[in-house]
Amino acid sequence: MICDVSLTPDAIPPDLRDTVVVVMDVLRATTTITYALQNGALSVIPCEEPADAFAVRERIGAESVVLGGERDSVRIPGFDLDNSPLSYTRENIAGKTVVFTTTNGTRALHRAMQGAAKSVLCAAFVNLTAVVERLLQGRPTNVLLACAGSEGEVALEDVLLAGAIAQHLAGAALADAAKAAMLAYQSAAEDLIAAIASSRHAQALARAGFMRDIEVAAQLNVASVVPTVHGSRIVLS
Amino acid sequence: MICDVSLTPDAIPPDLRDTVVVVMDVLRATTTITYALQNGALSVIPCEEPADAFAVRERIGAESVVLGGERDSVRIPGFDLDNSPLSYTRENIAGKTVVFTTTNGTRALHRAMQGAAKSVLCAAFVNLTAVVERLLQGRPTNVLLACAGSEGEVALEDVLLAGAIAQHLAGAALADAAKAAMLAYQSAAEDLIAAIASSRHAQALARAGFMRDIEVAAQLNVASVVPTVHGSRIVLS
Repeated sequence: MICDVSLTPDAIPPDLRDTVVVVMDVLRATTTITYALQNGALSVIPCEEPADAFAVRERIGAESVVLGGERDSVRIPGFDLDNSPLSYTRENIAGKTVVFTTTNGTRALHRAMQGAAKSVLCAAFVNLTAVVERLLQGRPTNVLLACAGSEGEVALEDVLLAGAIAQHLAGAALADAAKAAMLAYQSAAEDLIAAIASSRHAQALARAGFMRDIEVAAQLNVASVVPTVHGSRIVLS
Repeated sequence: MICDVSLTPDAIPPDLRDTVVVVMDVLRATTTITYALQNGALSVIPCEEPADAFAVRERIGAESVVLGGERDSVRIPGFDLDNSPLSYTRENIAGKTVVFTTTNGTRALHRAMQGAAKSVLCAAFVNLTAVVERLLQGRPTNVLLACAGSEGEVALEDVLLAGAIAQHLAGAALADAAKAAMLAYQSAAEDLIAAIASSRHAQALARAGFMRDIEVAAQLNVASVVPTVHGSRIVLS
């Protein structure tokens, strides 16, 4: 098992055959997707643009759909939910399909979904152990830890999660980027919330009133599910 | 002072106005350039291709030129020196112009030289403190720590040096990539040689017989010079 890290969506290679891609957008898309599926959503359909999300709702039928996501960190006009994991309660989404669009995470997901990967998983600190166990069970030839980043730039919180996964992949051969991420995580692990809170995206979220989401996103293993891409949907496989 | 890191040459932005770019190719170009200027070379002229280097020697005059560099880690046919810092002794290069081409370092240098940067410096662990002092004296608005990487991929040794510089830039605002590099360096600092030796490029150099160069490149502050781009040359300013 060879483990590499891509630091931004543009760095995801176009050809992903024989590769399991693990997409991570700690703040907040993959944390929120994990919450949604853990709390009983039937599936999550990632869309690049709000207009796509409205079209998908139209097609599926409004009664079974919840529209979720953000632009500039806040709820999109006409949407049901924002991108806070705390909004994806059982009451709000159990038995529903979440049609979902965010600034960075859905972009990384779509890029990963276009490359004919062996499979595409969603990781967050909240399901770290579940993702690691899935990888260790499957032992794919190649694992790509695909950081969503923030507006095309490296996002510290995603690098730290990539490093945490790399650290736990016993026996994997780590590419240099994975080694660098692992070393960064080792320094940050003692006070993970502080490290994540120092990131550019966390500071923007704090300014927008979502300070609590940073603590939620830094919690280890409060979820046991591994959101997995199946066609155009993310489900529990 | 805002400090960011670019992890590969392709990630260096095309517009570098108001930015001091610090190019680093720890294994081995910027370590070797530092050795060359520390040991009395008049200047280093980076060339993208061996054919360019031969043409520059022809133009300048062979008696004042030393051709140095590598392809596949070893000396280029017709060249005087390889890319080992240990080859750049006073006996070999004092008073000479070194015309220089390597696989990764000169590519990063050229990319940095094309962006109208405020200045372009060369950093290595061997001149870490000298580079940091230069930056702290100049206090530029933007510092870009430009990692040469290895064949387009992230190179651990360059990330660690970027992190070491970021760590010492008191008062600088660190972008997320610089924070991640700094955290990686903090984990690696206790046994820097081991961390560098674990990198992909170090392992290729060891296989090619250059194990000693890895120890040389990991030595802190054995040089006091800051190689600085001036036109098409690298000199001591």
